[in-house]
Amino acid sequence: MSAQAVKTAITPTRAENYNEWYQKVVRASDMAELSGVRGCQILKAWGYGIWEQMQRDLDHRFKETGHENYYFPLYIPLSYFAREAEHVDGFAKEMAVVTHHRLKKVDGKLVPDGELEEPLVIRPTSETIIGESMSKWIKSYRDLPLLLNQWANVSRWEMRPRILLRTTEFLWQEGHTAHETQEDAMRETRQMLEVYRSFCEDVLAVPVIPGEKIAAERFPGAVNTFCIEAMMQDGKALQAGTSHYLGHAFAKACNIQFQNRDGNLAYVHTTSWGVSTRLLGAMVMTHADDNGMRTPPRVAPWQVVIIPVLRNDADKAAVLDYCEELKADLLTSTYEGEPVRVKTDLRDMPGGDKRWDWIKRGAPLIVEIGPKDIAQRQVCVTRRDNLSAGKSFEDRANFSGNIGHVLSAIQKSLFDQALTFQKTRTVTNIKDWAAFEAYFSKDADSSFTSGQGFVRAKWCGDADSLAKLDALAVTVRCIPFDQDGKEGVCVLTGKPATQEVIFARAY
Amino acid sequence: MSAQAVKTAITPTRAENYNEWYQKVVRASDMAELSGVRGCQILKAWGYGIWEQMQRDLDHRFKETGHENYYFPLYIPLSYFAREAEHVDGFAKEMAVVTHHRLKKVDGKLVPDGELEEPLVIRPTSETIIGESMSKWIKSYRDLPLLLNQWANVSRWEMRPRILLRTTEFLWQEGHTAHETQEDAMRETRQMLEVYRSFCEDVLAVPVIPGEKIAAERFPGAVNTFCIEAMMQDGKALQAGTSHYLGHAFAKACNIQFQNRDGNLAYVHTTSWGVSTRLLGAMVMTHADDNGMRTPPRVAPWQVVIIPVLRNDADKAAVLDYCEELKADLLTSTYEGEPVRVKTDLRDMPGGDKRWDWIKRGAPLIVEIGPKDIAQRQVCVTRRDNLSAGKSFEDRANFSGNIGHVLSAIQKSLFDQALTFQKTRTVTNIKDWAAFEAYFSKDADSSFTSGQGFVRAKWCGDADSLAKLDALAVTVRCIPFDQDGKEGVCVLTGKPATQEVIFARAY
Repeated sequence: MSAQAVKTAITPTRAENYNEWYQKVVRASDMAELSGVRGCQILKAWGYGIWEQMQRDLDHRFKETGHENYYFPLYIPLSYFAREAEHVDGFAKEMAVVTHHRLKKVDGKLVPDGELEEPLVIRPTSETIIGESMSKWIKSYRDLPLLLNQWANVSRWEMRPRILLRTTEFLWQEGHTAHETQEDAMRETRQMLEVYRSFCEDVLAVPVIPGEKIAAERFPGAVNTFCIEAMMQDGKALQAGTSHYLGHAFAKACNIQFQNRDGNLAYVHTTSWGVSTRLLGAMVMTHADDNGMRTPPRVAPWQVVIIPVLRNDADKAAVLDYCEELKADLLTSTYEGEPVRVKTDLRDMPGGDKRWDWIKRGAPLIVEIGPKDIAQRQVCVTRRDNLSAGKSFEDRANFSGNIGHVLSAIQKSLFDQALTFQKTRTVTNIKDWAAFEAYFSKDADSSFTSGQGFVRAKWCGDADSLAKLDALAVTVRCIPFDQDGKEGVCVLTGKPATQEVIFARAY
Repeated sequence: MSAQAVKTAITPTRAENYNEWYQKVVRASDMAELSGVRGCQILKAWGYGIWEQMQRDLDHRFKETGHENYYFPLYIPLSYFAREAEHVDGFAKEMAVVTHHRLKKVDGKLVPDGELEEPLVIRPTSETIIGESMSKWIKSYRDLPLLLNQWANVSRWEMRPRILLRTTEFLWQEGHTAHETQEDAMRETRQMLEVYRSFCEDVLAVPVIPGEKIAAERFPGAVNTFCIEAMMQDGKALQAGTSHYLGHAFAKACNIQFQNRDGNLAYVHTTSWGVSTRLLGAMVMTHADDNGMRTPPRVAPWQVVIIPVLRNDADKAAVLDYCEELKADLLTSTYEGEPVRVKTDLRDMPGGDKRWDWIKRGAPLIVEIGPKDIAQRQVCVTRRDNLSAGKSFEDRANFSGNIGHVLSAIQKSLFDQALTFQKTRTVTNIKDWAAFEAYFSKDADSSFTSGQGFVRAKWCGDADSLAKLDALAVTVRCIPFDQDGKEGVCVLTGKPATQEVIFARAY
């Protein structure tokens, strides 16, 4: 490639200004935009369409593992929240509070009226309100395990919102389960983390590192928090999903007791686990390039977009017919056992503009059809995972017959690129504080070009030693499950240490 | 049937206490229950499972008619709401208002803190916040029509909540569209009403009367409100869905203008339309009987439930194997072009209790399998639409091969029963006020047994005449689309009138 500046669809580029690039891609891809309501976003057609595919896939996995969907109230009475001390402390600073139930006009101005006896919190998470129901529904060990999931909006008041990643309201699912024994609950906690790992890697093409959070990073109220951590293109970490073993914390707070097999009353062991629309942001920061989003085929609302290229009215009927035939061909093909999702873009705008529109959204395959293609029985294909390869011309029948394989190849290519990036940006040879400090001392804002990423190193577990990380804005992301088990030296204290952890800056 | 009391699964029966019967059915069917949060409900596995089937079917219809899903913020700034005077007047008395964004502890007690500069309303409906986006997104006639839908929770503060039918928070979909011309917008409004009519009748097996609301009953801000009205088993009406032509009301309030084909700025014409989880309540009040819910096959989470009847451990393996084989057989069959939804109930409880549990939920077909059935290669079937027919024994292969037809027959039977009821309880021979008053003068609480229902009669359109209805708690439900067009006499005023309307008490 020449050193000359290449024109890109997104300005600025990642290298020029990573944060602004991110916002521009989200907007240009028609995924989302910030609303006029502070910290709240609008999910647009392409973004919500991806979320629908994600929901469908996850929901299937939850049902396959025995969970049923419920829906619990948005409003949580303050008194419910107050039951678990750590939990309320963890969320008190970011809760939207409803205090009135109507409006009235005073001097022509609308003001809140009808003050509530007890204020209601908009759920930031639902352990307390679901716990309230569990305490009523669970009587005996025969009622266990109770395996629930909820698809819902939640709210955490954000002072520094970032679209898709951190907004005052977001969509998620939250699983909540109750079990007879710690062993059962822990098996569930780990099983759901594995569901998330597989979903992120196999469906979103986002490689993740599964592991456990250190005590300082646990969910408020949890005994153990497990997580999957992904690496963004600026080398920062993003927590992509969490699964918590909650022990007896909420069982005691909400009085969830059952008659066990010995006939005695006992507290259940609960778990909770969730992923959210922030995964849309994780996909952008993993897969997008300087021309916009690249959407993994498995979650692309449209896997193939057909664009009729009409130069004059005389061509129109023939081109549109050919497009319809191609679409019909493709609809008889399958990808991952399902019909291929194909759209013909009939909007009233030039074909070239349409092509760039779908490049920015990241449709996996963009097919342009003009009069010449009809004569040749061919299709003009752009593969979004490798845009620099340009357009290729393919025999129509071959293209249709082979579509499942090509979509699989794109899915794999996106994952492989991301995995290579994650491996390249993970360093394992930092053994002491001086090297650690030097590595993270570069300005965090230039991290796309600085080459910073994850440091995988030994840590002795001394909680006080974490204070050293503050100045670098670095945190311990997780204790990965795959440990080398070797004796070593803690990078923070120089003391002997066996446990490896991932250090990184994070979203 | 003998005059002797028949034991029923639901106590009281419809005849004994209709309102209490309704609540008991909702609870016993595992569809929903009221939560500890005032006026809010919990949708449980069976109820939410039906809602999922409804969503899937409706969502497909919306996409087929060109709509895309978006998601807009839960929070609406007070100032957005104030823009449309009728709209805010219509909703001001039932809005939850967020005034603070965190909690703090004062003397050990949690209290709201961080007062917002501008209070936020929890959306009761989203015309104003979606209008705000439409005003940014729409520039030219090329951007029209804009066809959006949103699946969301909404909140309307309820002083007299009734489970599923009227709760402080509920789930719904709201379509919002913008068009170049009144004609286009009106076509959309009527098209979506027809989608709802077909969905209610063909999928939920709930017959409805489509028509237009009179001015007094319009959505706040609408020019025309169209609706479908269903009849419950106590003869009361339930508005099952609405579709509004909003004219320029929100276009002007939110400043949604576009450059038209003549190059001039013009206001768009908007529509909105919605159905909600109250349709779950409508189905209960249409289909349930004194033994619980009867769920239409098209929305039943499980269309066939297989219950192994185990009398001793020796039988167990053989019975469970036979159940699995039966399930495998059924999964190769289709109903409405999709695999049959089959569940084997493996819970640790007696087979008879399970059967009654599924009767109360209203699984369309309940199949019991014991050792004797294996020997006979048969199945023991309960058809929930006709419980008084009892159990029947059928050849296993016949049962599996014929399953699609049987489910179709159940779907049709539920609709036919409901339609017969609606026709029987609609009177068309009331011609004057004396007869009208006599018809509705019986106590509303005894309406299940009183035989009251819909009065289809002429009304002259005089708004003042409606005051006469107040004492009877009757309203005009709609002006049905199918009019006889004949000259007649207004039942309220005795004046000449051509227009027929439906009068009824309503939920």
